[in-house]
Amino acid sequence: MTAPLSTLDTPAALLDERKVAANIARMQARMNALGVAFRPHVKTAKCVEVARLQRAAGAQGITVSTLKEAQAFFGAGFDDILYAVSIIGSRLPQVQALREQGCGLKITVDSLEAAQAVAAYGQAHGHSFDVLIEVDTDGHRAGVLPHSAALLEIGQALHTGGAQLAGVMTHAGASYNLYTESELVAFAEQERSGCVTAAQRLREAGLPCAIVSVGSTPTALSAAHLQGVTEVRAGVYVFQDLVMAGVGVCTPEDIALSVLGTVIGHQPDKGWVLIDAGWMALSRDRGTQAQPVDRKYGLVCAEDGTALPEWIVSAANQEHGIVSRVDGAADASLRERFPLGSRLRVLPNHACATGAQFDSYHLVKEDGSVQVWPRFGGW
Amino acid sequence: MTAPLSTLDTPAALLDERKVAANIARMQARMNALGVAFRPHVKTAKCVEVARLQRAAGAQGITVSTLKEAQAFFGAGFDDILYAVSIIGSRLPQVQALREQGCGLKITVDSLEAAQAVAAYGQAHGHSFDVLIEVDTDGHRAGVLPHSAALLEIGQALHTGGAQLAGVMTHAGASYNLYTESELVAFAEQERSGCVTAAQRLREAGLPCAIVSVGSTPTALSAAHLQGVTEVRAGVYVFQDLVMAGVGVCTPEDIALSVLGTVIGHQPDKGWVLIDAGWMALSRDRGTQAQPVDRKYGLVCAEDGTALPEWIVSAANQEHGIVSRVDGAADASLRERFPLGSRLRVLPNHACATGAQFDSYHLVKEDGSVQVWPRFGGW
Repeated sequence: MTAPLSTLDTPAALLDERKVAANIARMQARMNALGVAFRPHVKTAKCVEVARLQRAAGAQGITVSTLKEAQAFFGAGFDDILYAVSIIGSRLPQVQALREQGCGLKITVDSLEAAQAVAAYGQAHGHSFDVLIEVDTDGHRAGVLPHSAALLEIGQALHTGGAQLAGVMTHAGASYNLYTESELVAFAEQERSGCVTAAQRLREAGLPCAIVSVGSTPTALSAAHLQGVTEVRAGVYVFQDLVMAGVGVCTPEDIALSVLGTVIGHQPDKGWVLIDAGWMALSRDRGTQAQPVDRKYGLVCAEDGTALPEWIVSAANQEHGIVSRVDGAADASLRERFPLGSRLRVLPNHACATGAQFDSYHLVKEDGSVQVWPRFGGW
Repeated sequence: MTAPLSTLDTPAALLDERKVAANIARMQARMNALGVAFRPHVKTAKCVEVARLQRAAGAQGITVSTLKEAQAFFGAGFDDILYAVSIIGSRLPQVQALREQGCGLKITVDSLEAAQAVAAYGQAHGHSFDVLIEVDTDGHRAGVLPHSAALLEIGQALHTGGAQLAGVMTHAGASYNLYTESELVAFAEQERSGCVTAAQRLREAGLPCAIVSVGSTPTALSAAHLQGVTEVRAGVYVFQDLVMAGVGVCTPEDIALSVLGTVIGHQPDKGWVLIDAGWMALSRDRGTQAQPVDRKYGLVCAEDGTALPEWIVSAANQEHGIVSRVDGAADASLRERFPLGSRLRVLPNHACATGAQFDSYHLVKEDGSVQVWPRFGGW
């Protein structure tokens, strides 16, 4: 299905085909050079076509954030899947059903209680789950500490309880709050060494630990080496966004996702151009607010993607975006420069959040044609 | 379709039937007392069942923020619809098609250029559109000033160009930034008087202006009188939210929408309970951040809706919410108080944004049963 860009109804989520390909190639080349497998997190795009590009470039398996993603991607032929959110008992029947259909679905736990529940459920239902233990290497969310007694207790509970202790995984998500290369390199090493330490302790205790899985886009793009790691996970790198540009692991020019909006009005005295991409299209994500340079609701580009670095979406209502100069100045040529009905693109703060506002992407191909790629949301 | 609350997969968007009914009754009673028609904005719920309750209580017509809403609600039997986002030429064919199917769809303009485009399109296609002029009464977004020359120029262009000049409308959205009753009363009067002034100027110029439409939830619930106004619009009042509670036009107990999440882990040393409602479920809306009391990602309640005023969602990742004490203190009884697999509800900052993360609501009825009400999104 193709249609020219100029006939698209707005707001629309555009993907720049060349930039998606470049982001995928860059990450995969790094992983190859570092000698690790790469398991992209498909929660960013939630799009089978994007995951196929990642696989074609060399990715091995995928990571998901919901069992709905696991179900959808397994249905599309992806059978090596890590569900990277701590499992709860009520989800085990669905996990078992997927595994019995042939899906190599792995789950994670970060407490003795959860490990015992998984083992007990498996015993009661004649099934052995593949389980990774989540390790906390940066204090930002879930996981057990690499040196904790809990790590070994969980490992023992799984192993002796009949589950497959498949390995350890960590996500150093606090890397999103860093801004210098030296900090990022050090943080990637902290993530690596913490996860490898956890794996070594399990092995020294006589427990299996084949997988050592780490990752976030900032650390994956910053690690000096990944000795002892077997696989890396990252999600947002595939589109990149203004938060990642603020962290310093990409430039605004690398951002493959943008929101196409139409000019619906002007307030010349205020220097405002109103577009039909409000927060419902851009999302409420203000991830750059805490960074050194706040991009408000996003950077503005011309319809063809050319950056307009003086212009920003400075505020947003549900279906109204307010485009203004970064310096807030009025502009006498506003109506001429951005006529009613003309179009602009907005680069998003956070690709995962902005993509989620849409049920499809419009892939802009190098020849200018546009193809619809469905995406899904929900649970 | 009914199911007990305890079997619902999470995250889920719950509606408290009693509170929805109370919010609708409260607003309609105010409108009746003020002697104006009420045209609810259905962009908050995007749910036919909710709009039917509003209509049954006395609402006359609806307001929409997208033509997709217009199409969906017309299909469900609503035929008096105001599309409250400035029209652009590319949308006129769809507007004309809906009107020719019998939908009393009214559109808005706020520039001479748009007015001329609507008139010219109508003449070229043998159709007379019903058009309201958007008036700017608080400087927050779109519209022409009540005393501007542009107001009369637009009115003339529509009237002499063959369109039906149906009236004027304004939305004092900056009322969301107020916190005291006296400010709110004064702001409602500013909204009223500005819009009535615009109507009077049009009439004095010999132009028709039957509709004088104002509204936002804060001003609708604060106006001392609405002399000269014919109808009021408001959206978020139907569910209410923490931003509205911060403004002071409801209490947290009035909030009808909540997100049900399941406990998936703990970090007792930090005082954290992890739930499976992250920002994908709660939305990235941090509307209370700019208010005197910041509610972070939302206030926490027990599964049955009982407020737990010491607990808040202090941070959110995509599918992880971090619940902690408002004071940030650790809690030794965390695992016992909030066991793995137990459920919590979260009251949202902004009902419009949080509802939009879901494709259905689960209506919790007074007898405890649960009914699914579909909602839609997109454009």
